[in-house]
Amino acid sequence: MPIQKPRTLSGFMELLPQKQALFDAMVETLREVYALYGFFDLDTPLMEASEVLLAKGGGETEKQIYRFQKGDNDLSLRFDLTVPLAKYVALHQNELAFPFRRCQIGKVYRGERAQRGRFREFYQADIDVIGDGKLDILNDAEMPAIIHHAFTRLGLTRFVIRVNNRKLLNGFYAMLGLTDSAGEIMRLVDKLEKIGPEKVDAALREDLGLSPAQAGDILSFMAIQGSNADVLAALEGYRGRDGTFDQGLDELGAVCRHLAAFGVPEARFQVDLTIARGLDYYTGTVYETRLLDYPEIGSPCSGGRYDNLAEYYTEKQLPGVGISIGLTRLFYVLDEQGLLSPERLTAPAEVLILPMTGDQAPAVELATALRAAGVRTQIYFEEKKFKQKMAYADKLGVPFAAILGEEEIAQGKVALKDMATGAQELLTAQQAAQAVHAALVDRRSAAPIRERKPD
Amino acid sequence: MPIQKPRTLSGFMELLPQKQALFDAMVETLREVYALYGFFDLDTPLMEASEVLLAKGGGETEKQIYRFQKGDNDLSLRFDLTVPLAKYVALHQNELAFPFRRCQIGKVYRGERAQRGRFREFYQADIDVIGDGKLDILNDAEMPAIIHHAFTRLGLTRFVIRVNNRKLLNGFYAMLGLTDSAGEIMRLVDKLEKIGPEKVDAALREDLGLSPAQAGDILSFMAIQGSNADVLAALEGYRGRDGTFDQGLDELGAVCRHLAAFGVPEARFQVDLTIARGLDYYTGTVYETRLLDYPEIGSPCSGGRYDNLAEYYTEKQLPGVGISIGLTRLFYVLDEQGLLSPERLTAPAEVLILPMTGDQAPAVELATALRAAGVRTQIYFEEKKFKQKMAYADKLGVPFAAILGEEEIAQGKVALKDMATGAQELLTAQQAAQAVHAALVDRRSAAPIRERKPD
Repeated sequence: MPIQKPRTLSGFMELLPQKQALFDAMVETLREVYALYGFFDLDTPLMEASEVLLAKGGGETEKQIYRFQKGDNDLSLRFDLTVPLAKYVALHQNELAFPFRRCQIGKVYRGERAQRGRFREFYQADIDVIGDGKLDILNDAEMPAIIHHAFTRLGLTRFVIRVNNRKLLNGFYAMLGLTDSAGEIMRLVDKLEKIGPEKVDAALREDLGLSPAQAGDILSFMAIQGSNADVLAALEGYRGRDGTFDQGLDELGAVCRHLAAFGVPEARFQVDLTIARGLDYYTGTVYETRLLDYPEIGSPCSGGRYDNLAEYYTEKQLPGVGISIGLTRLFYVLDEQGLLSPERLTAPAEVLILPMTGDQAPAVELATALRAAGVRTQIYFEEKKFKQKMAYADKLGVPFAAILGEEEIAQGKVALKDMATGAQELLTAQQAAQAVHAALVDRRSAAPIRERKPD
Repeated sequence: MPIQKPRTLSGFMELLPQKQALFDAMVETLREVYALYGFFDLDTPLMEASEVLLAKGGGETEKQIYRFQKGDNDLSLRFDLTVPLAKYVALHQNELAFPFRRCQIGKVYRGERAQRGRFREFYQADIDVIGDGKLDILNDAEMPAIIHHAFTRLGLTRFVIRVNNRKLLNGFYAMLGLTDSAGEIMRLVDKLEKIGPEKVDAALREDLGLSPAQAGDILSFMAIQGSNADVLAALEGYRGRDGTFDQGLDELGAVCRHLAAFGVPEARFQVDLTIARGLDYYTGTVYETRLLDYPEIGSPCSGGRYDNLAEYYTEKQLPGVGISIGLTRLFYVLDEQGLLSPERLTAPAEVLILPMTGDQAPAVELATALRAAGVRTQIYFEEKKFKQKMAYADKLGVPFAAILGEEEIAQGKVALKDMATGAQELLTAQQAAQAVHAALVDRRSAAPIRERKPD
């Protein structure tokens, strides 16, 4: 028979088993945190009718979409979780209670140029809260609190969530009479950190034709820094000149004010007037996240407030606020940087039973007892030499081997061997289960990420 | 703006939130049980290069495959989890430890004729154990034990796992000199239950040209019934006439012998000589499952032993044994039959905090305390009348509302209202968390399925 060389498509992450366990631990952690905040966990189809998925039409994304014919159907794979959410909410609006809070962790597809660290199939982990007509600003304050909680539980501490408000920006540009070029200005301001204020100043004047005074006003505004209280105080100096600005400032103030109650330390949450998140979708609060040690990877978690989730599918006004974590890329970077934690258990089992007798029934009974006691147990059924059995246990990374020979069986016990220390104890099944639970309590729930301390 | 009518593709299951929670509970239960037996949990791409996925070529499935071009790539969506496993094991064989035990719960795609209860996107929940060159028969005994454990935890009791052995069948047909027509005979025998022995007898003679003696021998063989011990004893009467038969009987005996040690009651596990599971893939033990009250839906869980998992991708001999649950269809049937359990919690939160004051900070602090104590908590941030807030709590199905007015805040307490009984208590956050944990201990872990007792 001819052999087809096996391969995995480029841009598709396929992990070895132990690494997969760490990825799964990240997903599990996110699910647990999201669940604590009260969200319905949705699972929508990977595929939609193209006319539905692409109702908004146009845009950069469209070229990247996996779109194809099957029979009479023109189908597309989802490229994010937001459009399917919009469809879902519009379709089921009469059966949902608003505010509708949903989380979804799932794969999305974009046929991007293949490139190191870029994926064509990747996970997004989204939370959104959708209101019916109105949605309180407190929802905007809760989002970064959830992300803070989630990132902390993942094992990250060296990050900061940056927040801004689009109304504040739009209002500010209106004050300067620059409403029409606000989009282009935001694009330039977004480069501030990368190219510095001098070059932005030059570009504002030379490329966009702003007066030196206008450019200077923008750079002064963007230079407002300090504690969140300091920034908000400085922004108060602009109050009363534009209604949209004032509304944005009120919203930003409300978001900041509630974050302490949500348990978010000020060090992890920073008002940053330079961020704007794209141009036409977000209408109020916007978020970005930065890993302090890896600013070059951009924002692993972003989002914001939008006025109308599903305008392509329904007349109903559905404002919302949401945040999305780009999980596959985040995992890839953490792995590249060697930040996946060796503490977290990644073995398929906690105990590997090694039967040393021909009759395997005692091993099966021991396994059944250990499993009933909640211990993840595998039996090594194959006939091999002891050395090969131990080599297998090592390769799996199981923390314990349970050696079961004539003598142990006669005593109704098992020799439980700690694979890390080599220590061995003769125990009953119940005692073995207790010993395993006691030894693994930390490793079972260890955060999947372990940061290096900064130099 | 023109409105695109939202819709979900036919053949794609998209659940309302509460029902989704029950589906997720089934997935979660399967994951927990699989984990207890020691499997790596894989997550392979949804998509593969067509030349890789379809290396085996031909067959009924090929017409159903979602296959398309993207740029220069000829791509296909996976139609099961076994072919991607074969590719994975062949590709990563040098990094894996054998026996390689993997579970995978994921979506697969088949463009079947749209039909009630048939899905084009559906979940399979698979476990497989792959050996390197050899694999002990005890692995075949463990599979139905895992399924028994999983189904029991799902809340099912009225099912039976049926087992047979292809070597036994092949050996038996060889005894009759019918090796060449064994495949056609098995197809006919498979209809025994549906059309009865007379019609099978007639078809064996008339359609396949068997002698009355041969047809009679087959029907006598297939009529062997009784306890597993009875069936095995009757089969002993055929021993010594064909080596393959004898080997099959040894294997079947070993599987039956170990099931008690695995904790499987005999009532849930039945040797059934009439099942064969398709024709060319399985080579030894085969499994089917039957829901006693819904035989018409076929086998929600099937599998068996195969000699060579990845012959299309590698020269390495990789025998294995596996079982697959068709989860989407099973869920659909259970839902249709009204067997999803109302006991299991499906609300997005366990406590909904209803702030009765303008300042929401005390509500946020209460929520933070409840979440820290492990209670899934949502705050109702919107300004609405009390009645509307309670209607929202009802619609979500939250078991508790936490009412927080001036008076409660002044006392550092909250009025915790049991939504089912209407009972209300004034408690601290810690007391409220304890009350919620105590009240929900059963509902949190309730089996997702509740069978009706048979008449």
